[in-house]
Amino acid sequence: MNHALQVVILAGGSGTRFWPAGRRRRPKQLLPLAQGRSLLRATADRALPLCGAGALWVATSEDLATAIRAELPELPSERLIVEPEPRDTAPCAALAAAVVDAAVPGAPIAMLPSDHLIEPQDRFRAVLARGAELAAGGRTLVTFGIKPTFAATGYGWIDPGAAVDAGEPRAFRVQRFREKPDRVTAEAFLPTGRMLWNSGMFVWTAAALRAAMARTAPALAAAAEAMARASSRGDRHGLLAAFRTTAPGSIDKAVMEGAPDVAVVEADLAWSDIGSFAALDAAFPPDAAGVVKSLHAGARVVTLDARDCVVHGEGPGLVALLGVEGLIVVRTKDAILVCRKDRAEDIRKLHALLGEHGCEDLL
Amino acid sequence: MNHALQVVILAGGSGTRFWPAGRRRRPKQLLPLAQGRSLLRATADRALPLCGAGALWVATSEDLATAIRAELPELPSERLIVEPEPRDTAPCAALAAAVVDAAVPGAPIAMLPSDHLIEPQDRFRAVLARGAELAAGGRTLVTFGIKPTFAATGYGWIDPGAAVDAGEPRAFRVQRFREKPDRVTAEAFLPTGRMLWNSGMFVWTAAALRAAMARTAPALAAAAEAMARASSRGDRHGLLAAFRTTAPGSIDKAVMEGAPDVAVVEADLAWSDIGSFAALDAAFPPDAAGVVKSLHAGARVVTLDARDCVVHGEGPGLVALLGVEGLIVVRTKDAILVCRKDRAEDIRKLHALLGEHGCEDLL
Repeated sequence: MNHALQVVILAGGSGTRFWPAGRRRRPKQLLPLAQGRSLLRATADRALPLCGAGALWVATSEDLATAIRAELPELPSERLIVEPEPRDTAPCAALAAAVVDAAVPGAPIAMLPSDHLIEPQDRFRAVLARGAELAAGGRTLVTFGIKPTFAATGYGWIDPGAAVDAGEPRAFRVQRFREKPDRVTAEAFLPTGRMLWNSGMFVWTAAALRAAMARTAPALAAAAEAMARASSRGDRHGLLAAFRTTAPGSIDKAVMEGAPDVAVVEADLAWSDIGSFAALDAAFPPDAAGVVKSLHAGARVVTLDARDCVVHGEGPGLVALLGVEGLIVVRTKDAILVCRKDRAEDIRKLHALLGEHGCEDLL
Repeated sequence: MNHALQVVILAGGSGTRFWPAGRRRRPKQLLPLAQGRSLLRATADRALPLCGAGALWVATSEDLATAIRAELPELPSERLIVEPEPRDTAPCAALAAAVVDAAVPGAPIAMLPSDHLIEPQDRFRAVLARGAELAAGGRTLVTFGIKPTFAATGYGWIDPGAAVDAGEPRAFRVQRFREKPDRVTAEAFLPTGRMLWNSGMFVWTAAALRAAMARTAPALAAAAEAMARASSRGDRHGLLAAFRTTAPGSIDKAVMEGAPDVAVVEADLAWSDIGSFAALDAAFPPDAAGVVKSLHAGARVVTLDARDCVVHGEGPGLVALLGVEGLIVVRTKDAILVCRKDRAEDIRKLHALLGEHGCEDLL
């Protein structure tokens, strides 16, 4: 058994909600939304003081491998786990567990999304270390629950039960995962002071993950076992062949919601998954007029009587706003987007339209 | 006496209301708003079949001389009248009259703004020819009154009196010039069926213009006489020195409103001075959602649930609109503007702000 925490950053997301800043080969995690750094770079920098450079892994898609290498040049290629096809987080977790466990048998493995903003950094590491300690026993799947600050309908929630032990930060048995609630339900969750947001961060050992899968997703468990065997004998072809037998699915649905032994570490962190441009205020605090300015590479903005807007500009060049309110305005070299703030979710739909309008070059 | 109509296009305007498409060295008259041609080019093309290439003149500022030459390469430099300083239309009219009359003594001289859209072309020429005929007598100042289509508060109006003669298109003695009216007054003007919009187009002989100036603006008349004398002896230095003695002022205020013998030719034309981006629907008819698309050099636009917007795009590159209404959106290579449609007039104010914000390079 090896108790040295391994950290796998999940950097395969292709998100379309950040178009036109986000593109097929430069999705959200590669955008410079973390005070000049990319979210991916910031995620790595956040974990490195805890796990060390030798224990950092990244899982991503073939499309993004080149860009990821450029963003994390210190990452050796054997620690870049490339999914041959996108299958969502459950197959990805099995693949990553197989690869990492073959290299560092028995180690607790953290899976961290690459596109979240988290502060403060040291408290994050204390929380993660606590999770690693709980997972290192080899039985428990550990998740992290953010202390909520509003009645979010855009996140899943976790209902914590009894305390795992008396340690700090506090950890609980998970009583129940709750999917993204409606407004009324979310407003009932918040004042309990107990319910937590599901952060999408996890720690487990490969053995614990496969054991849980055996109960909740037998087909996936079989594929995970095949991946583990192939990986342990260095059979890359067999590893990817086994991965390809999996059905797409999220780790929450496929495993966590049905797993018998799940703990949640309470994470008292400022956290945002920056789900859309409308959430950029988590990264760039609004000015007095409520205008959020995400400016990069010499971009400039001048406003006159503009209120409650989000501007993302990539320079050189200027964004000028006059008399407008409640807008998202994005300027990149080759495209601009002007979107009502409350329609940010529909950027996906707009994105889907672009292909039909002969704009494949801008996807 | 020479009755060959000379046409002087006034192309000195520096307008800031079309920023960021319009710039210091590329103001509105040089923008491609006339079905792919610049408004200046379209103005020249509209007049040329009537006056011929040898009778076309352009008055402009030093700043714009190079761009004008590029836009009208057929114009010989002796027919480009460069104002040493901007002084508005009254001094410009005196300067142009002095220069043209020295070359073609006694000819009727038309002064045409360079930044209007006018259709149909042949009817315009019939109207202009009629004005030239009236002016050729050497006494009458001739203006052109557009048949109004709405109760415009943004234009001056003309109150026509008795018919000049029985000729067609109809011409009247001007009874009174009316400044830009308020809403109530404009709504009273419209149903008279008689009141006309002041188009800012004129025809006169140099002698008639100076005679009128002698009555309405003696100082300007003296300068005009000095310009005429200098020009007739080829004294460019004296010409510009006399121009520099003039006070800035508009030809309407300085001359037309007080002149004793002014005729107006009724112009039944589709006419727009495209005063702002909000008026671009005169050049680019709206689509079913009320979106006006002014797209140039490969610019593209994709909209989803956008209504009542004006898009001006200069390519290559894309403008995407999602869920927005009542906006002006302009994309150029180095700047974008997002402006509430009813604030189009305030683009001037925004323009003034740019210098203060270190954006002199974008003016």
